[in-house]
Amino acid sequence: MNASSRERIAAFHAAYIRCIGADHLEAWPAFFAERCHYVVTTADNRREGLAAGLIWADSRAMLQDRISALRHANVYERHRYRHIVGQPFVVGDTPEGTHAETPFMVARIMQDGTTDLFCTGLYDDRFDLSGEQPLLLSRQVICDSSRIDTLLAIPL
Amino acid sequence: MNASSRERIAAFHAAYIRCIGADHLEAWPAFFAERCHYVVTTADNRREGLAAGLIWADSRAMLQDRISALRHANVYERHRYRHIVGQPFVVGDTPEGTHAETPFMVARIMQDGTTDLFCTGLYDDRFDLSGEQPLLLSRQVICDSSRIDTLLAIPL
Amino acid sequence: MNASSRERIAAFHAAYIRCIGADHLEAWPAFFAERCHYVVTTADNRREGLAAGLIWADSRAMLQDRISALRHANVYERHRYRHIVGQPFVVGDTPEGTHAETPFMVARIMQDGTTDLFCTGLYDDRFDLSGEQPLLLSRQVICDSSRIDTLLAIPL
Repeated sequence: MNASSRERIAAFHAAYIRCIGADHLEAWPAFFAERCHYVVTTADNRREGLAAGLIWADSRAMLQDRISALRHANVYERHRYRHIVGQPFVVGDTPEGTHAETPFMVARIMQDGTTDLFCTGLYDDRFDLSGEQPLLLSRQVICDSSRIDTLLAIPL
Repeated sequence: MNASSRERIAAFHAAYIRCIGADHLEAWPAFFAERCHYVVTTADNRREGLAAGLIWADSRAMLQDRISALRHANVYERHRYRHIVGQPFVVGDTPEGTHAETPFMVARIMQDGTTDLFCTGLYDDRFDLSGEQPLLLSRQVICDSSRIDTLLAIPL
Repeated sequence: MNASSRERIAAFHAAYIRCIGADHLEAWPAFFAERCHYVVTTADNRREGLAAGLIWADSRAMLQDRISALRHANVYERHRYRHIVGQPFVVGDTPEGTHAETPFMVARIMQDGTTDLFCTGLYDDRFDLSGEQPLLLSRQVICDSSRIDTLLAIPL
């Protein structure tokens, strides 16, 4: 069966957030191409043309470094997080890859059991769909809130 | 590839909420047939057989009017919203179109960055799937909470 | 059209949560095989190897009993709930059925209209996909929070 781009991207998202949810963070960089762009930014920053973002990487190696840092910094992680993604929208094919946008929500579960909406936003992605598995050439994580913790204990 | 009705409706939802999320509200009425029904109501109202709803339109032109009104009323929108839809359920084909139900959640992000669940509910839809793009013949937005702001700054 | 396992499972989830959302609880056991496992547990319990769970059943008949009990116990249900599921991830085929994991969120809507995130977690499922409709051979509902009400008024 020849799955549609949208179906392939939906399956990719499912695998991506499962990786994070299962705390397999060391496997997370493999969802990206070796040369890639990964940015976490806010809707306000983006509107004002601030490209830098809160978190920034331009290679899979930098993503691996980030995970190493997280592992060393967070001796004891107090919270639990739960990602959920909605339906991907395929904007179209571009010279920079297949462009898709997908909304997400992340809940945070405190140690005492209280649960709140930690973060919402949009994945603005460019995919390489030429291989068996989609690869992220570029992911801009655009958080709706401008109050995002730059010491994020998990990837988005 | 001959996509299933469910897949086509899921892709429609993705496009619909992206339109709202990107503040392309002027493009929103084009998701509806020219003669259509759009109602925002509550689960309580519906159970009691109150058909009227909080918001009501029976043509694409009325939806366009609503967007014009929103644009003029909201000189400055203080909040941001994030829609997410779940998996659509195709109830079946009916004389009034393909019947599907899809749960949704909308988060609200305040200016100070706090995020909460603004609204949850169900899209109760009838689609015309005969064209290249699905069109809404009828959408009942059934909000779970009975405390829905009738001055909604965004479409649901 | 030969739908993928992922698509079939996504459609199953849509039907499952619609059944609960529409309060058709008597139809809920039919999503399971006659001999099945249904467990509601917490991420903490599971990590510590506590298999028992908060809620436990090993047959469709036990699930039917549970619904009967709910119907009799909850003379008047004060809250409303809204499930939403994300994208399913198909882990693979196993001797115990097709293994899939799907994140979910449940919102709770109080009588006064306030809405909060009641529960988040993961469906860890084994499906029988051999028939026309998928059947759950096993569902572990792994709640992220350890503060889950064992008197749950709705199935998860």
